[in-house]
Amino acid sequence: MKRSEVLQAQSRATDSFATAGIRLTAEELERIEVAGFGLGELAVQGLLLITYINTERYCAKELLLFPRQTCPEHLHPPVGDDPGKMETFRCRSGKVYLYVEGDRTAAIHATVPAGSEPYYTVFREVELNPGEQYTIMPGVKHWFQAGEEGAIVSEFSSTSRDKFDIFTDPRVERIPVIVEDE
Amino acid sequence: MKRSEVLQAQSRATDSFATAGIRLTAEELERIEVAGFGLGELAVQGLLLITYINTERYCAKELLLFPRQTCPEHLHPPVGDDPGKMETFRCRSGKVYLYVEGDRTAAIHATVPAGSEPYYTVFREVELNPGEQYTIMPGVKHWFQAGEEGAIVSEFSSTSRDKFDIFTDPRVERIPVIVEDE
Repeated sequence: MKRSEVLQAQSRATDSFATAGIRLTAEELERIEVAGFGLGELAVQGLLLITYINTERYCAKELLLFPRQTCPEHLHPPVGDDPGKMETFRCRSGKVYLYVEGDRTAAIHATVPAGSEPYYTVFREVELNPGEQYTIMPGVKHWFQAGEEGAIVSEFSSTSRDKFDIFTDPRVERIPVIVEDE
Repeated sequence: MKRSEVLQAQSRATDSFATAGIRLTAEELERIEVAGFGLGELAVQGLLLITYINTERYCAKELLLFPRQTCPEHLHPPVGDDPGKMETFRCRSGKVYLYVEGDRTAAIHATVPAGSEPYYTVFREVELNPGEQYTIMPGVKHWFQAGEEGAIVSEFSSTSRDKFDIFTDPRVERIPVIVEDE
């Protein structure tokens, strides 16, 4: 990802957080993480996030998705004594369509990113509007896409060990984000 | 606490959450907890809260304090295999003065509730403005008071087992809240 693209995305996220009334410190604004997953256009498959706290006991983040932006399908496996990350997504603003394992929803609202169809395999839809939340158990495949206005989602969870996440798409590069100088 | 007092406090909290842009579901609005601690006037020593999620692994709540309202001094002890609750307070709106164990701050901003002076014993001040946070380790005594505008504080933590909390003031009744019919 180019440095200018990262900076532009951070700037856009800063505006979105401010509009939603979510206050971040100056230090936090500088470390907003831009996750592009190495899948081409950030606006299609990607995610922005700020980690408030991540300890051996719990974790809290704010996730931000631009309109129709998609976080690719993945799951959180057991890591050592940890049975795998359990996480609660709480929609704060906008709308998010979350897909988990289970009976396929007849007509889903999201659009699977073109060219990545083989890597989206779970289609039980959970629609989250502001104030609504859903808890994803460890090991459950999931992916999510924002609605037309984008979305801000608070994530409350057990310890986050992102580098162990298993993505369905083998092309995904989760960590580190590679920033190319221009 | 009288039922009318509980309903009035819930209604006021509902307005405060809405003003801060924090969306709750209708079901959550009905179960906003009014913690009076059995210490007389709710507006002096008390706290309102909504628990979003509390599992064996993590917990997330939103706390609300009216202007100058104080949550009395307490600590979270070990419970069985649990070393005690660890919690991160993140100020979302307003201002909160948090007091923890450690070197006493020379001139604190909060006012200790009259008549309860013996039960406030830690005075290391941490001021939290919107976007600022602080993590309290298990077993550490703490209390907090909102500034003139009140405060909304997100609490991210390990599992919450409130009934085991140890309050410095032996008069505190944490659970259950007794609602008197009028």
